[in-house]
Amino acid sequence: MSTSFAISKRSTECFARRGLLNTAHGDINTPVFMPVGTQATVKAVRVDDLKDAGASIILGNTYHLYVRPGHELIRELGGLHRFMNWDRPILTDSGGYQIFSLSERTTISEEGAKFRSHVDGAALFLGPEEAVTVQEALGSDVIMCLDTCIGFPATRDEVEAATALTTRWAARCKTARTRAENLLFGIVQGGMFGDLRAQSAESLVEIGFDGYAIGGLSVGEPTELMYEMTEASVAHLPTTHPVYLMGVGTPADLIEGIWRGVDMFDCVMPTRNARNGTLFTSFGKVVIKNARYRDDPRPIDEACDCPVCRHYSRAYLRHLFSCRELLGYQLCTIHNLHYYLNLMAGARRAIEEDRYGAFRRDFYSGMAPQ
Amino acid sequence: MSTSFAISKRSTECFARRGLLNTAHGDINTPVFMPVGTQATVKAVRVDDLKDAGASIILGNTYHLYVRPGHELIRELGGLHRFMNWDRPILTDSGGYQIFSLSERTTISEEGAKFRSHVDGAALFLGPEEAVTVQEALGSDVIMCLDTCIGFPATRDEVEAATALTTRWAARCKTARTRAENLLFGIVQGGMFGDLRAQSAESLVEIGFDGYAIGGLSVGEPTELMYEMTEASVAHLPTTHPVYLMGVGTPADLIEGIWRGVDMFDCVMPTRNARNGTLFTSFGKVVIKNARYRDDPRPIDEACDCPVCRHYSRAYLRHLFSCRELLGYQLCTIHNLHYYLNLMAGARRAIEEDRYGAFRRDFYSGMAPQ
Repeated sequence: MSTSFAISKRSTECFARRGLLNTAHGDINTPVFMPVGTQATVKAVRVDDLKDAGASIILGNTYHLYVRPGHELIRELGGLHRFMNWDRPILTDSGGYQIFSLSERTTISEEGAKFRSHVDGAALFLGPEEAVTVQEALGSDVIMCLDTCIGFPATRDEVEAATALTTRWAARCKTARTRAENLLFGIVQGGMFGDLRAQSAESLVEIGFDGYAIGGLSVGEPTELMYEMTEASVAHLPTTHPVYLMGVGTPADLIEGIWRGVDMFDCVMPTRNARNGTLFTSFGKVVIKNARYRDDPRPIDEACDCPVCRHYSRAYLRHLFSCRELLGYQLCTIHNLHYYLNLMAGARRAIEEDRYGAFRRDFYSGMAPQ
Repeated sequence: MSTSFAISKRSTECFARRGLLNTAHGDINTPVFMPVGTQATVKAVRVDDLKDAGASIILGNTYHLYVRPGHELIRELGGLHRFMNWDRPILTDSGGYQIFSLSERTTISEEGAKFRSHVDGAALFLGPEEAVTVQEALGSDVIMCLDTCIGFPATRDEVEAATALTTRWAARCKTARTRAENLLFGIVQGGMFGDLRAQSAESLVEIGFDGYAIGGLSVGEPTELMYEMTEASVAHLPTTHPVYLMGVGTPADLIEGIWRGVDMFDCVMPTRNARNGTLFTSFGKVVIKNARYRDDPRPIDEACDCPVCRHYSRAYLRHLFSCRELLGYQLCTIHNLHYYLNLMAGARRAIEEDRYGAFRRDFYSGMAPQ
């Protein structure tokens, strides 16, 4: 089940590796960052903007699409790719995280999750089989097994029970799967307990998946603990399969995740921060609403060659934010996506040339002046 | 002062004419529709979208830019074109309309208008000389004289006084102008009184401008009266100069304005309606939020070749509106601008081929099925 992933280069300094993941909608060069397209759109931008920024795969949220407009409707309209006019790969999460964080009156049983829609209160159910059915209806290229979400902090007993349930659900997802062309990833849980992470990873590997995700991190724990749990998970996963760190993270988190052997990332940070006026640059964050940028003729980042930095001043972007003009959210999202995707392109080149350690040091030294 | 405008063809059926207006930032084929870029952005779209849709000139709002971010700042940053990254012509209104409709505690004297900013309450003043100074600082290609706004309905005495003041201000604007490369247009007022319209037009022509605008219409009067007042104004303007009907209007208003000899139009309708989910099509309006479009796989308008109609279904656009996704406003604005600008391109071709009457009939018959 791992013929879909080929590693062309491994760092001699760390666990970083350069790979190619083959999917029904094309190849993905890894390490890769996946912009989040929650409701069949990456917020504020068009698909051409994503391609211009270098996005090779985006993430769709199963929970959101299940609730609205519904997976059956999307299937009837030709699948998620056609619905949103995106012809490159799509990974869908399982919906597990949103069932816990967004929906109401959620009850979990061995069967699955009963919950009420956050939109209209409708009573809904999603078990492992339904999660696969929904994602297959969407036409996702990479399907995630339904997992349970564990809060932070949580007791060992809670974590142990939830992790075991996630594993049993993962086995049912694999059985439920009907199409081999859609890759299926298992999700490692185990909370903040290294041994439970190891156990979770090993159980999933025994079932066997096309790739493995690390879930339940970036939920409020200290950054160092997140890195530690990433290591505890990766150590028990096959080095031949893609590893995806879910919902992570800051630029530094990406750099550190790659160092620890992670191939795939997704996070709302570049898009959400853009809409709040927080921009990522080679020298740190720029809060564009700040009055100091009122008459600043410089681009966001003089070292950036994105279309926004080539054509617009900080003063103009600040003006758009002051006026709450929609164009501001659009342009800042484009810039932030370029930043994230360029960072990953740089990481890939560095791994190819076996200088990832230097790349990582350069990243931090660039940030210093802030 | 009319060498900037050349008419290549006049309809033999009506007052429609095909012209070319030369400005410092390039030529404009008329009749033309100018998308409104109130605050240094046409809301929800990028400058490339405007070019793709065929926009050859856009409108900027002097009042808004004067209030925020300020004309001096825009001048320091290289002018409005550079500030917003638009290298084609820009026409700026005089600010008169917004002083009356948006600002607070406005008092009018012979000198000009005292008012308070709608943003922060700052005390501001704009007289005819200041209106020209501000527009020159912005680097506008077509500057409008400051005019007074007349409500509807208004008494003959009120209209007479306001129109006479507008004429005196127009003379001062002409004197205040310092750069010949920026065209200067006078604004015909006269409310809903045909003889005052005639008087206003004749007084402005006596002063002499590069073009003439018809102001004070589309303020709540019946459509037929608006057309009648347009005719009453055009009849007293030189047939050699561009005529601009301000703030108008619906697609039918454009068709009728051209029939009556108007060369230029601007209106927030295509962009504002788009953000409300009201779309213009060859067969009438489509309210995309309507539940009937929930599973409609068709484009907005099968006869439209805009990028939105080529790639997206009504079901997808409705979904975006249901979720209040920013992309919905963006895509619908692009479609509506294509509709308006295509309509004008069609009108220009029809005039060239002297079949404007047939074009006008076809326009109305297309609308019939609704």
